[in-house]
Amino acid sequence: MSQITRFGISMESRLLERFDELIGRHGYSSRSEALRDLVRDRLVSEEWSQSDSQQETVGTITIIYDHHQRQLTENLNEQQHKHHHAVISMMHVHLDHENCLEVLAVRGKANDLKKLADELISTRGVKHGKLVMTSTGRNL
Amino acid sequence: MSQITRFGISMESRLLERFDELIGRHGYSSRSEALRDLVRDRLVSEEWSQSDSQQETVGTITIIYDHHQRQLTENLNEQQHKHHHAVISMMHVHLDHENCLEVLAVRGKANDLKKLADELISTRGVKHGKLVMTSTGRNL
Amino acid sequence: MSQITRFGISMESRLLERFDELIGRHGYSSRSEALRDLVRDRLVSEEWSQSDSQQETVGTITIIYDHHQRQLTENLNEQQHKHHHAVISMMHVHLDHENCLEVLAVRGKANDLKKLADELISTRGVKHGKLVMTSTGRNL
Amino acid sequence: MSQITRFGISMESRLLERFDELIGRHGYSSRSEALRDLVRDRLVSEEWSQSDSQQETVGTITIIYDHHQRQLTENLNEQQHKHHHAVISMMHVHLDHENCLEVLAVRGKANDLKKLADELISTRGVKHGKLVMTSTGRNL
Repeated sequence: MSQITRFGISMESRLLERFDELIGRHGYSSRSEALRDLVRDRLVSEEWSQSDSQQETVGTITIIYDHHQRQLTENLNEQQHKHHHAVISMMHVHLDHENCLEVLAVRGKANDLKKLADELISTRGVKHGKLVMTSTGRNL
Repeated sequence: MSQITRFGISMESRLLERFDELIGRHGYSSRSEALRDLVRDRLVSEEWSQSDSQQETVGTITIIYDHHQRQLTENLNEQQHKHHHAVISMMHVHLDHENCLEVLAVRGKANDLKKLADELISTRGVKHGKLVMTSTGRNL
Repeated sequence: MSQITRFGISMESRLLERFDELIGRHGYSSRSEALRDLVRDRLVSEEWSQSDSQQETVGTITIIYDHHQRQLTENLNEQQHKHHHAVISMMHVHLDHENCLEVLAVRGKANDLKKLADELISTRGVKHGKLVMTSTGRNL
Repeated sequence: MSQITRFGISMESRLLERFDELIGRHGYSSRSEALRDLVRDRLVSEEWSQSDSQQETVGTITIIYDHHQRQLTENLNEQQHKHHHAVISMMHVHLDHENCLEVLAVRGKANDLKKLADELISTRGVKHGKLVMTSTGRNL
């Protein structure tokens, strides 16, 4: 765990009141925790927007597909194997008779992870997909 | 102007360092100002996500269109007039021989402004459009 | 699998050219597949924006945390158990000595899933978190 | 106006039904128009995400501020003058006794417009600000 710095900030009382209501509604235990979360979220989105970054980052790719689609399961599996350095682990949930949810935990350069997400999401038969851009947690 | 409250927050030193870099890069003059902006932005998005809200809010609608499209200018004008209570003002820019940029400043309930934006953006000939959800500024 | 409808659409040739380039860059095999993806993504975001919806939906919650934080693992586990009806499955990845990635597959009403995500993400010690709003796949 | 191409696409009937409902709700007059809008929106967001792009683009910057804040109006005016090549036009709305809405129509390279938006939004006293990334309309 990192060392803690304590510092003061000033905020319009009216703004602070509304913020206190919001953090109550979202279940935060303290202002510090809520402000740190706003800061961390901003840092992560900054990290991913610098598209030429060589820094290692972490994400998850969520896809929904119909496994009755011919060869789809096989294709997706093969694509993931081609990128086995990036794919740390995968979770598969059987949503119903037809629909599967797959979540991949991925790690690598922001641009490479974006490309892998593109490849999986653009596969015929994949109904919906999203890339979550998060972080190794190391500098957060 | 609202009264100011000063309070302390604690943050991991490593996180604070990265935040200080970020706010330098984006030209903030102080941590307080940057944190207040994160808070205000969060409050505004919360306001707009409560779709049944009766509170008055403010937005801008930006559209790009080709004025050679038959009757388009007239149609857009008429739509805006139908909502003259919501449309405070409009700015028109001639981007080139064909393309116009129009920005409407709008005011009203979140849901009504969303509907008006939908209506304008879905008009045939409007090439691109976006609604900015901001605020009356009163509680920020 | 659902029945297929084939229909014609018209598009400015210049727009179509640019779209063809884009879908090439993102690895789509056909225009139909790329357009279906745009449609499905729009339907999913519409589903989640209707905050009072009683319809069942599916999501994933991704969180990054430092497991050295006192009692955090236990707390997160307990929160997830309280919502065991919503949490279908969970995947845990050890990112490094300190940092954990957890991805929960969740299912339920949009509003309930948002609340659960809020609760987990606002927990002290959770460094970053995101909710992916996807779908049961049934109507996509 | 650009030449029109007409082509066929195939879509699951169930997906098409839901899309037809959605476009009804949002007031589209035809499937073609709604699909073209999805395509154009995707192209614009692609254009802005390529951060090294030299291509000219168009945007609007919306800011809310309290003009009683000392020297703020003057500062904002000066910043805008420094970038007079980028700022095409500005609209100012007096929201109430204190609060102003300003909308700038801007034009230039994506990165330069992002920097200008950063600069204005990070100014002390600016309560909220957003950059809309749109386009010259030329290739849409």
